[in-house]
Amino acid sequence: MGRKPTKIRIIPLGGLSEIGRNMTAIEYKDEILIIDCGLSFPEDEMLGIDIVIPDITFLIKNKEKIKGIVLTHGHEDHIGALPYVLKKINVPVYGSRLTLGLVENKLKEHKIPEVHLQRVNAGDMINLGVFDVEFIQSCHSIPDAYAIAVHTSLGIIFHTGDFKIDYTPIDGQFIDLHRIAELGKKGVLVMLADSTNVERAGSTMSEKSVGATFENIFSKAKKRIIVATFASNVHRVQQIIDAAHKHSRKVVTSGRSMINIIAVAQEVGALNVPEGLIIDINEMDQYEDHQLAILTTGSQGEPMAALSRMASSEHRKLDIKAGDLVVFSATPIPGNEKSVTKVINQLFEKGAEVIYESLAEVHVSGHACQEELKLMHRLANPQYFIPVHGEPRHLRQHGKLAEKLGMKSENVFVIQNGSVVEFTKDHAKLAGSVPSGRVLVDGLGVGDVGNIVLRDRKHLAEDGLMVVVVTISKETGKIAAGPDIISRGFVYVRESEVLIDDAKKVVRKALDGCEQQNIREWAVLKSAIRDSLKELLYEKTKRRPMILPVIMEV
Amino acid sequence: MGRKPTKIRIIPLGGLSEIGRNMTAIEYKDEILIIDCGLSFPEDEMLGIDIVIPDITFLIKNKEKIKGIVLTHGHEDHIGALPYVLKKINVPVYGSRLTLGLVENKLKEHKIPEVHLQRVNAGDMINLGVFDVEFIQSCHSIPDAYAIAVHTSLGIIFHTGDFKIDYTPIDGQFIDLHRIAELGKKGVLVMLADSTNVERAGSTMSEKSVGATFENIFSKAKKRIIVATFASNVHRVQQIIDAAHKHSRKVVTSGRSMINIIAVAQEVGALNVPEGLIIDINEMDQYEDHQLAILTTGSQGEPMAALSRMASSEHRKLDIKAGDLVVFSATPIPGNEKSVTKVINQLFEKGAEVIYESLAEVHVSGHACQEELKLMHRLANPQYFIPVHGEPRHLRQHGKLAEKLGMKSENVFVIQNGSVVEFTKDHAKLAGSVPSGRVLVDGLGVGDVGNIVLRDRKHLAEDGLMVVVVTISKETGKIAAGPDIISRGFVYVRESEVLIDDAKKVVRKALDGCEQQNIREWAVLKSAIRDSLKELLYEKTKRRPMILPVIMEV
Repeated sequence: MGRKPTKIRIIPLGGLSEIGRNMTAIEYKDEILIIDCGLSFPEDEMLGIDIVIPDITFLIKNKEKIKGIVLTHGHEDHIGALPYVLKKINVPVYGSRLTLGLVENKLKEHKIPEVHLQRVNAGDMINLGVFDVEFIQSCHSIPDAYAIAVHTSLGIIFHTGDFKIDYTPIDGQFIDLHRIAELGKKGVLVMLADSTNVERAGSTMSEKSVGATFENIFSKAKKRIIVATFASNVHRVQQIIDAAHKHSRKVVTSGRSMINIIAVAQEVGALNVPEGLIIDINEMDQYEDHQLAILTTGSQGEPMAALSRMASSEHRKLDIKAGDLVVFSATPIPGNEKSVTKVINQLFEKGAEVIYESLAEVHVSGHACQEELKLMHRLANPQYFIPVHGEPRHLRQHGKLAEKLGMKSENVFVIQNGSVVEFTKDHAKLAGSVPSGRVLVDGLGVGDVGNIVLRDRKHLAEDGLMVVVVTISKETGKIAAGPDIISRGFVYVRESEVLIDDAKKVVRKALDGCEQQNIREWAVLKSAIRDSLKELLYEKTKRRPMILPVIMEV
Repeated sequence: MGRKPTKIRIIPLGGLSEIGRNMTAIEYKDEILIIDCGLSFPEDEMLGIDIVIPDITFLIKNKEKIKGIVLTHGHEDHIGALPYVLKKINVPVYGSRLTLGLVENKLKEHKIPEVHLQRVNAGDMINLGVFDVEFIQSCHSIPDAYAIAVHTSLGIIFHTGDFKIDYTPIDGQFIDLHRIAELGKKGVLVMLADSTNVERAGSTMSEKSVGATFENIFSKAKKRIIVATFASNVHRVQQIIDAAHKHSRKVVTSGRSMINIIAVAQEVGALNVPEGLIIDINEMDQYEDHQLAILTTGSQGEPMAALSRMASSEHRKLDIKAGDLVVFSATPIPGNEKSVTKVINQLFEKGAEVIYESLAEVHVSGHACQEELKLMHRLANPQYFIPVHGEPRHLRQHGKLAEKLGMKSENVFVIQNGSVVEFTKDHAKLAGSVPSGRVLVDGLGVGDVGNIVLRDRKHLAEDGLMVVVVTISKETGKIAAGPDIISRGFVYVRESEVLIDDAKKVVRKALDGCEQQNIREWAVLKSAIRDSLKELLYEKTKRRPMILPVIMEV
């Protein structure tokens, strides 16, 4: 690769082809710093996959160079791959109080005890080898979010992390625009910035505006109020808790992540709950409907989440009653629209009132829209720009936005995961690539499910399968038992008896044909079975189930 | 059921639980009239299913009463189930020139020759037994759309069909508000109205507004323009053709349905194409890029549609070039967001410019928003109201809208598919239900895939399968051959050799255990195999593949 130690190399390992899996490596003088370590959720075609993490072949190969992982905030797409990555490269991890609180929980679940976690505060500068890493107060849909400035002898690398500009933040922690302006004045070599909302004009509304809607909802509701939101949106949770407190409602929490995150956030001081406000779900029946608010997961219609279970009467302790007011305080993430709609419909059918985004202002985004992005570009005023945190369409549009603000197009690097951009004080260029890609996690298996397995799952999902078993005599080459046929996911068995009989005949005929030609090779026999069956089934049903011939010899 | 012939019964058989499968039966004096006969597309969990049609058990049982099927317009969710339904009940079908043009095509494909199709014009009144059926000019995202008024001796049933109110329609066919007002004045017993956009405030923009965007795009583009839209949106197609003509571009059409519908629409006179404007795809290379516009299917990111194939370089005749301008003249239908995004990303990666909804006004809906719905309610002024064409959330909101306009809540029937509403001159009530539900079509099979098959497909899709085959000696009860193990969709075979060996051991042990206890029943042997394997596989992989034990005897 011809690396020269006097160059900085920036290598995104995730987050540049999708929303998710954010991870960036910075290499300088044979040392490596990692920013974030996220997961993504599987695409529709990744059947049965639980989560997706970045390919870290490059990091494993350069293990001894890594000085640490610094985290911008505690969302899954920024910390979710840590348990998997830390198993391979055990390096120190730095982050804010809430971020580390969530990381600790996660490592405990995965039984990874011996990791050095170090809490940093906004404004802190820590030294990691050739990197001086500064954590800058930012603002996002989770508290304690940081932007990161990496100071090196070649210049400053400024990573915005996920951000929005909220002039009236719930926790009073205003994004440190002063410091960003100062860095911009001093001179930023390269900026990496959040591209999620680049297609949206204007500015994202303040989180406070949602509070006004809640105030309105809580002051009018006569029966129970059930609010579903992202558990990690602690500011949102705070506003709901405040509204409940003000209107003398007790709060019941439901959903594992809601309960967990509220506990962690309270512990680190990011969430303020009045004594006795949150009651146990089993005490609910001591209160009237108008004295209760329920805070739950399931705002994305996830089938196993608490709200979905309430809507389908599968929740053990909570059922929806006519007159309940259910608020979806979230927007469906692309791909979740149908699941959300399904839950909304179920709620309506149970007689609940349902408030969702097209009806009221019950959600704001955590990401900057165009006007906020422009402010960030102007303040940081970088020499070079790499749009991050987005799909190709977002990265492209963000690159264009930078050009509209006056940046030369050759200074904008719209790149992919694995691309290497090399910087000197006054020059930057693409310099090859490192392995990158999606590693699929299915149960305990990390990377053991790949394209072939997924292709098979897709085939099975679409048309089911037919297993044909036949025992052949070693001596005679004739059928000793079978053929037996078993199908799953293909057609109702009771409707297909004739078809199965036909199938057996066709298999027998194919095998007889082989025997007459004295063919004994299993591969040939199997393909004879497969071909004859395929033809029959397609003709009769226009379907193509997977056909699995099994031959045994006795 | 206690039917009395002096009552009108309205029975929706589809369209009241989802967007799709629209079909309503009206029964009066032992005669039945059917309005529309649509399909819906499968939900995500309906793995491998092609389309979904209404359950017509009720109609088949009352075959001899049916006077005919009247069609409001030619969209799939209103005509798509015809080939399946007409196979069971061969009755006359009535519709507009374009609607029947599309139906004819469809019946030809399904090889259903002997159906009586009768064309009706806007303003026509036809007599079908006790029903006088009037076809009223409407406006929708396909030309020749009708509202339907069914005149009976008990009163008028007014069905809006799908509609919007466009004051400047492309084809000059203004929705016949005068006639609707007249009916309202005369007195409408019950109205059934489109609920699709009831959650949207204001009014849907005129189709003409999209024309202005196209004019702007066509006057600026320097290279090829590729526009993807719904083939059936003939007004949209007309505007694109007009823009191409004006800016001296030849038009190439791609995608089966685009080519088909353009042909049908031209034939019936619903589309006006200047001589020589549309050229064959093979003549494309005789023109410069700025002389070409390509009109294609694939606006929903459908994997097999023409635009998707261009984007992934799988189209035989068309590839995307850097500088191409691609316009998505459509909004993703809920559930299609991710596929559309995938194609947009691929196009960007090929260097195309891409224009889609968040960036320009390239699409308008075909359905009425709240203000238009209010106008319709005011004009028709019905005594009773049944919201149709929507999910439960839409129907519920539409019911509320009617109440806000002054209708008594007991006169609003927010009902489900299969519900029966019975009307007399001055009374209406719910009166039981008829069988209704979703019939799944997979290949040639209509209704042969049900919940068990789908559950198996889901299981297979998520964790794959493991087939265990063992041959047992009839005499000794001992293993004669095997166990053999085959897995698909589970793990990479090369990574799982040890696991497969362990699995064989476990199976052998389980069978030995059975033999020692002298157990010979296959069901018991199979469940012993299944249980032992399940435990092993979950312990080793945290996955639960489908386990299929097969036992043969020799």
